[in-house]
Amino acid sequence: MNKNDRFVKKITPKSVDFSRWYTEIIQKAELADYAPVKGMMVIRPPGYALWENIQQLLDKRIKESGHSNAYFPLLIPESYLQKEAEHLEGFAPEVAWVTHGGHEELEERLAVRPTSEAIIGTMYAKWIKSWRDLPVLINQWANIVRWEKVTRPFLRTTEFLWQEGHTAHETKEEAEKETLMILSLYKEAVETDLAIPVIEGKKTEREKFAGALETYAIEALMTDGKALQMGTSHNLGQHFSKVFNIRFEDRNQNLQYAWQTSWGVSTRLIGAVVMAHGDDSGLKFPPKVAPIQVIVIPISVGDWKETVLPSAQNVESVMKKAGLRVKLDDREEFTPGWKFSEWEMRGVPLRIEIGPKDIKEKQVIAVRRDNREKEAIPFNALSQRVPEILQKIQESMFEEALKFQRENTHELHNYEDFKAVIEAKKGFIKTLWCGDPACEEEIKEETMATIRAVLMEKEEEKIQGKCVHCQKPSKFLVIFARAY
Amino acid sequence: MNKNDRFVKKITPKSVDFSRWYTEIIQKAELADYAPVKGMMVIRPPGYALWENIQQLLDKRIKESGHSNAYFPLLIPESYLQKEAEHLEGFAPEVAWVTHGGHEELEERLAVRPTSEAIIGTMYAKWIKSWRDLPVLINQWANIVRWEKVTRPFLRTTEFLWQEGHTAHETKEEAEKETLMILSLYKEAVETDLAIPVIEGKKTEREKFAGALETYAIEALMTDGKALQMGTSHNLGQHFSKVFNIRFEDRNQNLQYAWQTSWGVSTRLIGAVVMAHGDDSGLKFPPKVAPIQVIVIPISVGDWKETVLPSAQNVESVMKKAGLRVKLDDREEFTPGWKFSEWEMRGVPLRIEIGPKDIKEKQVIAVRRDNREKEAIPFNALSQRVPEILQKIQESMFEEALKFQRENTHELHNYEDFKAVIEAKKGFIKTLWCGDPACEEEIKEETMATIRAVLMEKEEEKIQGKCVHCQKPSKFLVIFARAY
Repeated sequence: MNKNDRFVKKITPKSVDFSRWYTEIIQKAELADYAPVKGMMVIRPPGYALWENIQQLLDKRIKESGHSNAYFPLLIPESYLQKEAEHLEGFAPEVAWVTHGGHEELEERLAVRPTSEAIIGTMYAKWIKSWRDLPVLINQWANIVRWEKVTRPFLRTTEFLWQEGHTAHETKEEAEKETLMILSLYKEAVETDLAIPVIEGKKTEREKFAGALETYAIEALMTDGKALQMGTSHNLGQHFSKVFNIRFEDRNQNLQYAWQTSWGVSTRLIGAVVMAHGDDSGLKFPPKVAPIQVIVIPISVGDWKETVLPSAQNVESVMKKAGLRVKLDDREEFTPGWKFSEWEMRGVPLRIEIGPKDIKEKQVIAVRRDNREKEAIPFNALSQRVPEILQKIQESMFEEALKFQRENTHELHNYEDFKAVIEAKKGFIKTLWCGDPACEEEIKEETMATIRAVLMEKEEEKIQGKCVHCQKPSKFLVIFARAY
Repeated sequence: MNKNDRFVKKITPKSVDFSRWYTEIIQKAELADYAPVKGMMVIRPPGYALWENIQQLLDKRIKESGHSNAYFPLLIPESYLQKEAEHLEGFAPEVAWVTHGGHEELEERLAVRPTSEAIIGTMYAKWIKSWRDLPVLINQWANIVRWEKVTRPFLRTTEFLWQEGHTAHETKEEAEKETLMILSLYKEAVETDLAIPVIEGKKTEREKFAGALETYAIEALMTDGKALQMGTSHNLGQHFSKVFNIRFEDRNQNLQYAWQTSWGVSTRLIGAVVMAHGDDSGLKFPPKVAPIQVIVIPISVGDWKETVLPSAQNVESVMKKAGLRVKLDDREEFTPGWKFSEWEMRGVPLRIEIGPKDIKEKQVIAVRRDNREKEAIPFNALSQRVPEILQKIQESMFEEALKFQRENTHELHNYEDFKAVIEAKKGFIKTLWCGDPACEEEIKEETMATIRAVLMEKEEEKIQGKCVHCQKPSKFLVIFARAY
């Protein structure tokens, strides 16, 4: 078998079939592969390295905002899930049930956690006694299982990885403040680290987390015009504290139920990075989270191993010392041209080429993945210039995505336009809505578009008008889209 | 409720009842708590922070030795586990089985992973085609479920966290080399980071991993004289590659089965840190992995908030700048004396006290947790001196543990002595063994001691003699102990 055959460079162009492009690029770039259990995936090293980078940056933000990590059990007794009725109803169809331990049948079924409010609530009831114990600010990195019927790698899988924050507070106001602080933290993380612009908003009753008082979310637009929910932050009110009996003695010696929040982002973010930035040549990773930020490719002509390779190795070591994630591709069995395509496909933000001519001129050629701009960089400027270019790439990728989002956000107030736009161009539709769930449901049935976000608009006049569908007086300014 | 009552300082002395001391200190220091499912625990923030530090240092070592992280599914079809007969037999009594997804019964039961050889072998068969694809060097950080009858926090729990490395190689020699390289890496990590000396050795058939060709392990002696297995490294030979069909075209175009290894350490290491270093006052964390390395306690007398507190805050910020994990305990409701005991109990390696007298003399008092040595440190020497002391503590803790291990390793060749020592002093018994599993079993039944390690002794004369039990010619120099 010829190694050149191992990576079929040809992938279905994104413009031809977005969905096929997505599943093909994920497999070819070895981000993920299908596991033998339906709907489960294996996250392969390049995909996992991306996740580790996302995780590390987010974990730092979560800790800096005062939260600590902990770990709660994977298996939750059925009776605990049943305590919050709405919560159980929301999750029951998706739960994987453990019924046997070893050779024995269990007395009570155990849920493989579909989320951890029930188990964490149980523990908080044990730990929280006084207002002095509050706030409790805990986060968990964990795997989650939800029995999904239709799956797609990273976007919707039977098992996925995530972080889930669970906090408890003295007052309603504090819980609401936490919920919104986390929403901002997520927005900042996704925009800064993943270079993906998002809109923030509240969810409607229909899209709300099962058991929450309010759900807030950040939503991004993928390059096929569909929306992807990137993270959610729930104000749980006292729903869970009442059923799990999380009570504390307040400052006036009265017993009160705690106010709670929960919030999470998942490996879905990997899918977002693929869909928000990729192109026909493959992946395009933002430098901040790219597993490899710089690929060094020696131009292998003549006696390159004696002449070019030592300089290429030197470039690699200079980049490493500059704190960058760099790789030298010195394999003999591939041509430089093949390597260029390969690493473009794998999304490396910057390629450094070095050949005999460059060595004479004491320089390298740097080529940006995002816009293919070339630049000669003198050897002695490498450790200063490369980080600058990477920063530029990060910013341009965000600008590019923001431009796309703006161009594909359609403000309109007429239902015929709504239908035409959703059908022809997709994107975000910014419009007015009456607030009636029945109306929302009708729009969904007719257009497959749902309300992604109720905008947190404070100016009264901006929400006044008529509902785009039923023409009754509007109560909310919202973003509609077809969504993943 | 008075906050002073929240932490009952009194714990059962270690010397009185080691087992009670262990479970009490774990709960009082908030390392873990019991979850509602039998045998499952919650790892609370201080325990999880310890794990994160252990994990971070070990992950670095694993990556530097050429391995990448990935993530494989939690649920494994029963038929995959059944492929390797010995493996299934070993794990079947401990498997938690998922039988329902949502409201539907599954066609095939799914095991909640008790270890991942089966699922990873399945994927490797898909990925490995040629010798050019080898070696495959993958590690996974994951949760594991094993249905244990008797459990104890961190040491043996129904769910635990671990890393499991899984590699595939061209030759038997390479696989053996990897197995031993990882064994050394584990020894280095545990001795350097956790300050716990270990012995390395091979496992007997009885103690071997189900499905392995050879199992190697590192074993440490806890302060109650019992042994704890700290990590294992398995040479899997071709056992799994044959049943999962992991074949590759070798350099001569022949099809060959790959040679595999697997290896892991778990949250059990947290239990080891508690048991190897703790004392009657509580935990004693090695500085390298301590969640908090330095606790700053202002002496709260008179107008301390105006006079002492600003200096204490300054000390905290100097320590932070020096890259240390520091905390200032400026709570008003506790006395300095109470805080001293509290943070000793929680294992913080170094306490810095600062009072009015110290401020006058421009110094602080540093008190070591390990030996309670006091030292005055001038303000301007803090950022240099404190890291030095922490390094000293790390080294002394290792020396102390090594001294204990040596004093409690008994070389003997008489079975009466064996029984007397095991009963009276426990510890490691270094002796000769015939190699007969029946003899090993008899010793276990009579003394509750098992062979923890077959020493990798190369000098022939050291293994020649008579078996300590049956008096037949010996084949191995081994370490016996009662073990967790």
